[in-house]
Amino acid sequence: MRGLRFDGSVARLVTDLPEPAPLENEALVRVCLAGICNTDLEIIRGYVPFRGILGHEFVGTVESAAGHEDLVGRRVVGEINAPCGECAACLGGEGRHCAERTVLGIAGRDGCLAEFCRLPARNLHLVPPAVSDEAAVFVEPLAAAFRIPEQIAFEGRERVLVMGDGKLGLLVAMALVDVAAEVVISGRHEAKLAIAAGAGARAVLAEDLDAAAPAGGFDIVVEATGNASGLAEALARARPLGTIVLKSTVAGETTAPLSAAVVNEVTIVGSRCGPFAPALRALESGKVDPTPLIAARYPLAEAEAALARSAEPGVLKVVVDCRLPA
Amino acid sequence: MRGLRFDGSVARLVTDLPEPAPLENEALVRVCLAGICNTDLEIIRGYVPFRGILGHEFVGTVESAAGHEDLVGRRVVGEINAPCGECAACLGGEGRHCAERTVLGIAGRDGCLAEFCRLPARNLHLVPPAVSDEAAVFVEPLAAAFRIPEQIAFEGRERVLVMGDGKLGLLVAMALVDVAAEVVISGRHEAKLAIAAGAGARAVLAEDLDAAAPAGGFDIVVEATGNASGLAEALARARPLGTIVLKSTVAGETTAPLSAAVVNEVTIVGSRCGPFAPALRALESGKVDPTPLIAARYPLAEAEAALARSAEPGVLKVVVDCRLPA
Repeated sequence: MRGLRFDGSVARLVTDLPEPAPLENEALVRVCLAGICNTDLEIIRGYVPFRGILGHEFVGTVESAAGHEDLVGRRVVGEINAPCGECAACLGGEGRHCAERTVLGIAGRDGCLAEFCRLPARNLHLVPPAVSDEAAVFVEPLAAAFRIPEQIAFEGRERVLVMGDGKLGLLVAMALVDVAAEVVISGRHEAKLAIAAGAGARAVLAEDLDAAAPAGGFDIVVEATGNASGLAEALARARPLGTIVLKSTVAGETTAPLSAAVVNEVTIVGSRCGPFAPALRALESGKVDPTPLIAARYPLAEAEAALARSAEPGVLKVVVDCRLPA
Repeated sequence: MRGLRFDGSVARLVTDLPEPAPLENEALVRVCLAGICNTDLEIIRGYVPFRGILGHEFVGTVESAAGHEDLVGRRVVGEINAPCGECAACLGGEGRHCAERTVLGIAGRDGCLAEFCRLPARNLHLVPPAVSDEAAVFVEPLAAAFRIPEQIAFEGRERVLVMGDGKLGLLVAMALVDVAAEVVISGRHEAKLAIAAGAGARAVLAEDLDAAAPAGGFDIVVEATGNASGLAEALARARPLGTIVLKSTVAGETTAPLSAAVVNEVTIVGSRCGPFAPALRALESGKVDPTPLIAARYPLAEAEAALARSAEPGVLKVVVDCRLPA
């Protein structure tokens, strides 16, 4: 089969890959659409020592699933962490943090920028008919946005600042408009900010943020800029006793005046993968429509070009159609 | 009166200071013992732009208190934040974070390294007879230690690492042994660690910490090293989904690989001043005895020498006797 494989130095389309062989309780998924994420680009920059097929955002159809035949032929999305199921973290319900886990296209498990991928059957979620493939391919990053209300108990009166108008910032803003009193999203690109504004967030150019900030600061600041300098600004924007959510995984070191966090007793919450169910519900109900984020669509045969396009500044979601041409 | 005054460049004992004039609802306190804190040393290094009498840890006797005459003659300790009482933070019960607050010996209010100081009467707490002056002078920093279980709900099964065997680290370890399953304190000084061990903590030299750390990491790591490098080690010591409590106020910037906090979804909690009531209860019951931390005692006339001694490496608590010589 064909797949976009990273060999440790470059990512190349390989055409003679073996079809994945599912392990016990795993399903083989025929990939329909796959999304390219900043993490894929970070992997190529050396963020983690992964080698193999890239990609962890997909919607596809179950091709086979020994012991789970009811899944065959169904349209699915998949949680990317495959925990061991036996360690203390797994037994404690924290499988996403199992030290032995494999992660689709990120750690020890080939990804979905290919014709097929494999995942444990229990990782798969059925996609409701009302959700298009183009929306469903966003379930994984949208779930990461819905991780925030799972970590922080919203009371509906919070004033939230989302820093960054990239893919993740936009999805976070879309996910939070329903639970917070106000979601301000700041960034440098009017066209991108307009997508969040269309979903109910208040879009503010970064240079105008002073005027839009509440006296005393925001209750919650989500750092989704992808820049190492983001935390310092988040500390300046959060109110005393407020919360900063760190969403950016920046390779290397972050420098910030953290005594401000001590004096103001700010809580900083690291936030990564999230729950698929609320993401799927938000897509099914139409509360969140991520499809305006799609900047370009490529066939799998042009996956290298898709990756290059995704790395260009300012480009939002690039999706790859992994189906064989008709 | 005499007091240790910081003029922006040096701290000097001044002998002809006016006695403080209490405002409405404030009490005049005759200081008995005052403690020197690292924050006093940081102020001299320029951490905050304070000018005036230093000192925010004390036990004393109420000299006068218009409208609160029942307090006169009583032995008291005092909360250091004097909020405005009228802003949104104050009305929301977050007076310790009032933007208009004055802070004893730190911001807009002369401190207690003097014969007298003034504070709002509602800031004062009576000291039970069973608590000695030498113990009571620790209430303010011990309250800062008890801020941690106010911020984090302990279930009694947590394995806690306290990093740093300075004054604050020792008090934190002493405060937490009662609420956590295990408190490991790490540092570089066997004699200091022994104080925490005597209170029920497990003392480990920093170079032996690898062997003492639980598989997967500590549930809670309290960073009380006072060093900018502390956070990076705390991130390496906390388990996935664990919590880091930041207690050190380090002037300037902190650099750390914060993507670890994102991937492991660690929560970092800034923690500053705390509740006096549990600190007083712990002293009264004898559960915490901070007096072994007293390294030296000076009369107020030698306050400059006391400050210099406190700044020497490895010196724990220096207390100053502010009473007039008999």
